Amino acid sequence: MDNKLMLMIPGPTPVPEQVLLAMAKHPMGHRSGEFSALMGEVTENLKWLHQTKNDVLVLCSSGTGAMEAGIINFLSAGDKVLVGNNGKFGERWGEVARAYGLDTHEITAEWGKPLNPDDFKAALEADTAKEIKAVIITHSETSTGVLNDVETINRHVKAHGALIMLDAVTSLGAISVPVDEWGLDVVASGSQKGYMIPPGLAFVSVSAKAWEAYETATLPKFYLDLKPYSKGAAKNTTPFTPPVNLFFALHAALQMMQKEGLEAIFARHDRQKRATRAAMAALNLPLFGADDCASPAITAVMPQGVDAEQIRSVMKKQFDIVLAGGQDHLKGKIFRIGHLGFVGDRDVLTAVASLEATLTKLGYDQFTPGAGVNAAGQILLA
Amino acid sequence: MDNKLMLMIPGPTPVPEQVLLAMAKHPMGHRSGEFSALMGEVTENLKWLHQTKNDVLVLCSSGTGAMEAGIINFLSAGDKVLVGNNGKFGERWGEVARAYGLDTHEITAEWGKPLNPDDFKAALEADTAKEIKAVIITHSETSTGVLNDVETINRHVKAHGALIMLDAVTSLGAISVPVDEWGLDVVASGSQKGYMIPPGLAFVSVSAKAWEAYETATLPKFYLDLKPYSKGAAKNTTPFTPPVNLFFALHAALQMMQKEGLEAIFARHDRQKRATRAAMAALNLPLFGADDCASPAITAVMPQGVDAEQIRSVMKKQFDIVLAGGQDHLKGKIFRIGHLGFVGDRDVLTAVASLEATLTKLGYDQFTPGAGVNAAGQILLA
Repeated sequence: MDNKLMLMIPGPTPVPEQVLLAMAKHPMGHRSGEFSALMGEVTENLKWLHQTKNDVLVLCSSGTGAMEAGIINFLSAGDKVLVGNNGKFGERWGEVARAYGLDTHEITAEWGKPLNPDDFKAALEADTAKEIKAVIITHSETSTGVLNDVETINRHVKAHGALIMLDAVTSLGAISVPVDEWGLDVVASGSQKGYMIPPGLAFVSVSAKAWEAYETATLPKFYLDLKPYSKGAAKNTTPFTPPVNLFFALHAALQMMQKEGLEAIFARHDRQKRATRAAMAALNLPLFGADDCASPAITAVMPQGVDAEQIRSVMKKQFDIVLAGGQDHLKGKIFRIGHLGFVGDRDVLTAVASLEATLTKLGYDQFTPGAGVNAAGQILLA
Repeated sequence: MDNKLMLMIPGPTPVPEQVLLAMAKHPMGHRSGEFSALMGEVTENLKWLHQTKNDVLVLCSSGTGAMEAGIINFLSAGDKVLVGNNGKFGERWGEVARAYGLDTHEITAEWGKPLNPDDFKAALEADTAKEIKAVIITHSETSTGVLNDVETINRHVKAHGALIMLDAVTSLGAISVPVDEWGLDVVASGSQKGYMIPPGLAFVSVSAKAWEAYETATLPKFYLDLKPYSKGAAKNTTPFTPPVNLFFALHAALQMMQKEGLEAIFARHDRQKRATRAAMAALNLPLFGADDCASPAITAVMPQGVDAEQIRSVMKKQFDIVLAGGQDHLKGKIFRIGHLGFVGDRDVLTAVASLEATLTKLGYDQFTPGAGVNAAGQILLA
């Protein structure tokens, strides 16, 4: 049905009406007092969301741009870095590091499995010469729905003294990322995820320790040089023309998030994750990734006896629900249900009900009709 | 008056209602067939606007990001480049070049004066060893309202063989930039200008000759690496999550531009430029920059006997018209009237009428009341 699509993918995520309408206002001049006032409020609210007193800088880029900025501003060619790689995004940060001539060492885990904190511990403890300058990891691996144990890995990084750089693109706004409490040096995220706004803005928080490293870092940069953003932010302005309409959207979305409250936001994502997983179990659809490392943003499913792409196709054509497919070698093998951002409990139940009907249509009969909806409903209403 | 601001600055420029409403739609998945279809149309229309068969790539960044991409993708550290600098943006491209370790030689002109093509001719002819790899210039210098003679400078560059890299941020969509006819290798532009959409997208056209240079260029890059954008564009997709709502806006705006037609768009900008300048002359307000190098996008005025910032203040407070001020050493000395993008003849006449009233209010009496409106009207209706 035209104009009826419901996005249950890990980004772009659904955007609330008041955010869309805020974005549709005429732009204002970005060097005006009005824009500065708005940017001041936005910056304060971003710090609240990041649970930090650190700088939280706003870029006009995708999440990758923010993560790249987070890496290149604080390092120099030849610097040794450890990169956690257990999915498409971990893999990408390794590519970024190599593109800039960093001495890149990867700690890997199979796609669908979490990074093992002990691997980081071993590598960091073995580095008695303190050659490792940074540890780069992905919190919620969007490609697989796996949540890495950042809290534990970070403890090992802290014991060593390297910088920790976190891709929180699909975790920020879905699960607590307590930047100050954990002492996270660089945290990158993107607008089309937990922030509930369209893509086009990205965020980087930067610790004092990272700024110290900036002083001696020599990788070339200009548009992604974070210092001018920091100097600008202190005066509620930006070094380059900002996407002012996306700032209008961000302002509106952050106000909604503040109204809901951090704890309620995290509880909602956790509840919807558990409901989705319980429904998949009740439908005898194997989950890709274990419960103890399940992302609150996205659930990956590896169906047996029914084709993942056929499921996606019927869900879209018949019910106007967009699910994500698998990436790279998982293409055609998994589908992914996003429950990130502006997703209500009703949406989760709707997706499960539609999935049941779709499975039946496709001749998959390994479940009791209604079992998925019942399982999800019980958790949502617990 | 609340919500009544009229932007007559060189960006963001006014955005048509149908573009704002297109942008306010729910996002779609960027890996969907629907998005690919939209991107295919957008790409074709961008080539039409650029008068080229070259790649025209879309980035999520400010115009600076696009210009930086245009510079760093085709050069290596130590490469000799000539940079034209006669204003804030020419200055910036020198900064970018130096940030990446290019051997940067500037050809300068005073702010308010155009670059002298003969200076380029001399430098290029003296370079018999062909050490100069690229010439980097700004077409319409936003900070001063000066249009550089790209056509002539480019002829000298062609005779030499270096790459030509053009900042067309405030010229594209206002004056003809015939990429193929002139053989321009790299042309960067930004959405919040002649494109009539909010900031957040930027564009780079790339010639076959530039792609040849790419193969041996060694500056590090990832988010701004143009090759993945080119490979993606060939399949109507993007390497990183694109700002889909800004693409909706771009799609709508390009359709409007096609309906108006290139010649009509350029004629409108030229007419409004002449009308604005005739009005300033009739008001005895000295123009900053001569007629023969006047940008069709913006007119800079250096008032005598009345304060530029006071003019801007009254125009904004009383008439809700935003004019731009001067930048850097021109701060407080000039004001700039944007006539770029979605600006009708009525807007120009409105601005002139409001300016007359403002001047009178500020005690400036060096003109016959009505002279500005009359002068502008005669040109607009000629």
